[in-house]
Amino acid sequence: MPAYAAPVDDMMFVLRDLLDAPGVLAPLGGEEVPLSLMAEVLGEAGRFCEKVAQPINRSGDEEGCVLENGVVRTPAGFREAYAAFVDAGWPGLAHAPEHGGQGLPRVLQLLFDEMLSSANFSFGLFPGLTRGAIEAIERHADDGLKHLYLPPMVEGRWMGAMALTEAQAGTDLGLLRSKAEPLEDGGYAITGSKIFISAGEHDLAENIIHLVLARLPDAPPGVKGISLFLVPKVLPGEGGGLGPRNALSAGSIEHKMGLKASPTCVMNYDGAKGWLLGAPHQGLRAMFTMMNAERLFVGVQGLGIAEAAYQGASAYARDRLQGRAPGAGGGGPQSILVHPDVRKMLLTVRAFAESGRALAAWTALQMEQAARHPDPAARARAEGMVALLTPVIKAAFSDLGFEAAVQAQQVLGGHGYVREWGMEQLVRDARIAQIYEGTNGVQAMDLVGRKLAQEDGALPRAFFALIRDSLAPDSEFAIPVLRALDRLEAATAGLLDRAAADPAETGAAATDYLRFFALVALGWMLARMAAVPGAPESKLVLSRFFNARVLPQAVALELALQAGATPLMAMDEGAF
Amino acid sequence: MPAYAAPVDDMMFVLRDLLDAPGVLAPLGGEEVPLSLMAEVLGEAGRFCEKVAQPINRSGDEEGCVLENGVVRTPAGFREAYAAFVDAGWPGLAHAPEHGGQGLPRVLQLLFDEMLSSANFSFGLFPGLTRGAIEAIERHADDGLKHLYLPPMVEGRWMGAMALTEAQAGTDLGLLRSKAEPLEDGGYAITGSKIFISAGEHDLAENIIHLVLARLPDAPPGVKGISLFLVPKVLPGEGGGLGPRNALSAGSIEHKMGLKASPTCVMNYDGAKGWLLGAPHQGLRAMFTMMNAERLFVGVQGLGIAEAAYQGASAYARDRLQGRAPGAGGGGPQSILVHPDVRKMLLTVRAFAESGRALAAWTALQMEQAARHPDPAARARAEGMVALLTPVIKAAFSDLGFEAAVQAQQVLGGHGYVREWGMEQLVRDARIAQIYEGTNGVQAMDLVGRKLAQEDGALPRAFFALIRDSLAPDSEFAIPVLRALDRLEAATAGLLDRAAADPAETGAAATDYLRFFALVALGWMLARMAAVPGAPESKLVLSRFFNARVLPQAVALELALQAGATPLMAMDEGAF
Repeated sequence: MPAYAAPVDDMMFVLRDLLDAPGVLAPLGGEEVPLSLMAEVLGEAGRFCEKVAQPINRSGDEEGCVLENGVVRTPAGFREAYAAFVDAGWPGLAHAPEHGGQGLPRVLQLLFDEMLSSANFSFGLFPGLTRGAIEAIERHADDGLKHLYLPPMVEGRWMGAMALTEAQAGTDLGLLRSKAEPLEDGGYAITGSKIFISAGEHDLAENIIHLVLARLPDAPPGVKGISLFLVPKVLPGEGGGLGPRNALSAGSIEHKMGLKASPTCVMNYDGAKGWLLGAPHQGLRAMFTMMNAERLFVGVQGLGIAEAAYQGASAYARDRLQGRAPGAGGGGPQSILVHPDVRKMLLTVRAFAESGRALAAWTALQMEQAARHPDPAARARAEGMVALLTPVIKAAFSDLGFEAAVQAQQVLGGHGYVREWGMEQLVRDARIAQIYEGTNGVQAMDLVGRKLAQEDGALPRAFFALIRDSLAPDSEFAIPVLRALDRLEAATAGLLDRAAADPAETGAAATDYLRFFALVALGWMLARMAAVPGAPESKLVLSRFFNARVLPQAVALELALQAGATPLMAMDEGAF
Repeated sequence: MPAYAAPVDDMMFVLRDLLDAPGVLAPLGGEEVPLSLMAEVLGEAGRFCEKVAQPINRSGDEEGCVLENGVVRTPAGFREAYAAFVDAGWPGLAHAPEHGGQGLPRVLQLLFDEMLSSANFSFGLFPGLTRGAIEAIERHADDGLKHLYLPPMVEGRWMGAMALTEAQAGTDLGLLRSKAEPLEDGGYAITGSKIFISAGEHDLAENIIHLVLARLPDAPPGVKGISLFLVPKVLPGEGGGLGPRNALSAGSIEHKMGLKASPTCVMNYDGAKGWLLGAPHQGLRAMFTMMNAERLFVGVQGLGIAEAAYQGASAYARDRLQGRAPGAGGGGPQSILVHPDVRKMLLTVRAFAESGRALAAWTALQMEQAARHPDPAARARAEGMVALLTPVIKAAFSDLGFEAAVQAQQVLGGHGYVREWGMEQLVRDARIAQIYEGTNGVQAMDLVGRKLAQEDGALPRAFFALIRDSLAPDSEFAIPVLRALDRLEAATAGLLDRAAADPAETGAAATDYLRFFALVALGWMLARMAAVPGAPESKLVLSRFFNARVLPQAVALELALQAGATPLMAMDEGAF
């Protein structure tokens, strides 16, 4: 496995030169975070990823997790690495100071997430889930629960897990059967079995706080009868300590394609004590506030994979003396970078990594504005951007991250298929991001079926206007992007019309539309980066490459989605 | 893992209704093979795959191969399955009767290869390699060697392996260092180390015949100084028995992403006794006759993966009650086939599997004509078709097979990521086909840099004319294909012009061009199948689906390849 070097310089280019992060954050109040502090935090985070997380990535994959007598053992070194993570204060990086966090901007957390996902995808998922649980508790719990649970979770001493899926209820949460019976003390007894619970049980922390979807006795059927409960593995004791063990346990852990150092558990709740979060029957909404942040995180996992894949493949290509330039005569062997096709693979991966990083950071700044901008209209506008971009980033980044890993693996030839080289692990780990937190098909339906249609198309209208406003129309970098944007805008309008007539049209167009949208958004960021005064030459090259060799895919996606639902629905169900 | 059912009916549709295989084979001489015999052979082959090969597929993946004291142990059940394979006479299916084969048409072997690749990718590779070795010996060995080696190899008692790659010489075989010293008895002492040798050592057969590339003492440097040697693991003894062990051994086996039940060996030749095959310094040419058949086989491996992936995913989709039709109100859950996006994934996989099967079978019939047609012009024409289609089938089918496995895995959601369900193994196994036998980038260079340019573009001209001749120009199925063909033809001419001016243009366009070419060829087969009188309704649906939702990719590929080499070559080598 080639060494991982955190791309702190490129991250600082994004924060400083592209997005002016301090300028965006200044009007939001709170303590000022100068660029020098951002660079310091990212540098320190990068060192953690390089020196602590990455060295146990491959061994963690080989060893995997083990369930014995109800206890999940993580691979060698994971406990120590997590302890170092907690000691350094990383769990609380962007959480509120009132709960013990450092209150730093969310964009730094996001960039740290990218680095962790590059260095050790499985390791990075643990704190990612805990952050999601913290956000749900912050938003939906009463003060008593907050006071009890948030400080140890922000500290990292306690961790979190999300328990949604049941065997008969994957995407369709309306089919959930887990039950919550009210107890006399105001709590609930939770009973049911959940599957695919990442980090539902493990040995990194003394307690794991489960957020569990279940039905109250008087619940209406379907998704309108689901409530969210906080269910700790160990009940809190006196004075912030630990009390008795709660009635929940891991029944088994999955054997998976990748993500092997993160246990994916079947969790059994046998009358476990829990507390309602938010209003009765409003669990799905409460869960979604948590899932939006998680979806952005999953997209960033794909981004982290792409960066690691690029670093591994470009290092190999530079060192591999196996080529001769096209048309070159004699002389010794040259590096395989002389092959245009090798360059095409590397540039494809890198164009995504750099534009994806910029787009994700931009979205994180929008989240910050949505949460804290003094102007309600600015808050609402930013919230709309985040709502629109969340499914795009989750689905497109996880798809592109997987494709990046596959392309980078190809650069290594046979070595790419051999475990010791580490590239194939990136492919196996990346694959889960396309599936969990709502499959990418579900994300596409969220984009096309909900986000596009909201307020008569206000969200895409605002986003498209923003793109136009931020690009110089006569820039060589912008012209192809603006042309694609015109077509995307027309496709958006056409799709909304067709979907009104036949709801199958939404589903038939969704995945192609989402990729089309993502290509425009990524091209936008590349064009903006190329236009930054003094930008590195490579930014200009990447924008030109993307516009010439990647963006044309938009034309095919547009043609395909215009063909509509009929070609898909024509096959008899019995003929599949 | 869902049960595999050999698609014998669809294979017979291809042989009988689409291609009229008996009619094509009749003028070639030899014994007539009626359709009833073809159906019987395929039915029996299908049962072997369903009942013997498939049941040890997942266990073989979990267990893998083990190297102990120089001996490679295959997973449990592989020895018994291979013994059954030999007992049934399968190794000799399409080999010449004079060496003990049954002399059945190569197209039956190809369809059997598809089934074996669906049922057990790793198992299928063993006999695939042996067939390649047999072909090289048939073409290049003298009668003495043929007499000694071919009967036990055709019987399956002895097997074969190909030893090309060295650590410093992957794609660039000119860098090979292995040496061959002449001995007094006319043999050679072979010394060197080879990597990535599939089935170089194992316990399925009593002997393994290695075909090894090495340099004679007077060899010129580079690819013009490579010779091919036959190097048996065990030297033949008296009367067809076994003699002493030869000086070759497996130094290690690779730990891989997939293909785990097939050992990938580092092979050490320590003055091993060998015999020259073909002329001195002409080893590369001799190796290529073997590699062309192997490349077709590797493409068919991708096809087999796609069929297995389709079967697994469609069975899951039919049974998974998790959906509600778009716009549907209440009622119980429906199968996820109500989702247009699920259908899109399944139809994409199936359209490739059925069109790929037809195109591969057509190519196998061309091979038969190239080998045995009484008219030399017909032989040359068929040989040209095979030369043109070989890199297309190897690269596009292995790419599309991998993509099919990924899409089918996605249909299963979280279950797709879990090993027990078997879909993720298809992804891991499929991945190697894009890499071995010449990476797909190398195939694309072969197509664009050699095959297109031969005889001033005669090969694509003949193939494009054949497509036009075989489609009714006003058929709804043909119209989009013919339109894409027009553009492919224009792109071909444009590319040859540009490549003459700048050799980097070839490499810059190669992979996009190959996929473009493959889309047209697959669309051609779908259109032909849809036009067969009495074709199943599903053939019409698949052709319409492909034309509407897949073929548009050709437009993007054309735009991308027209952008040429400049956007790829602009990045400084030092900036990667």
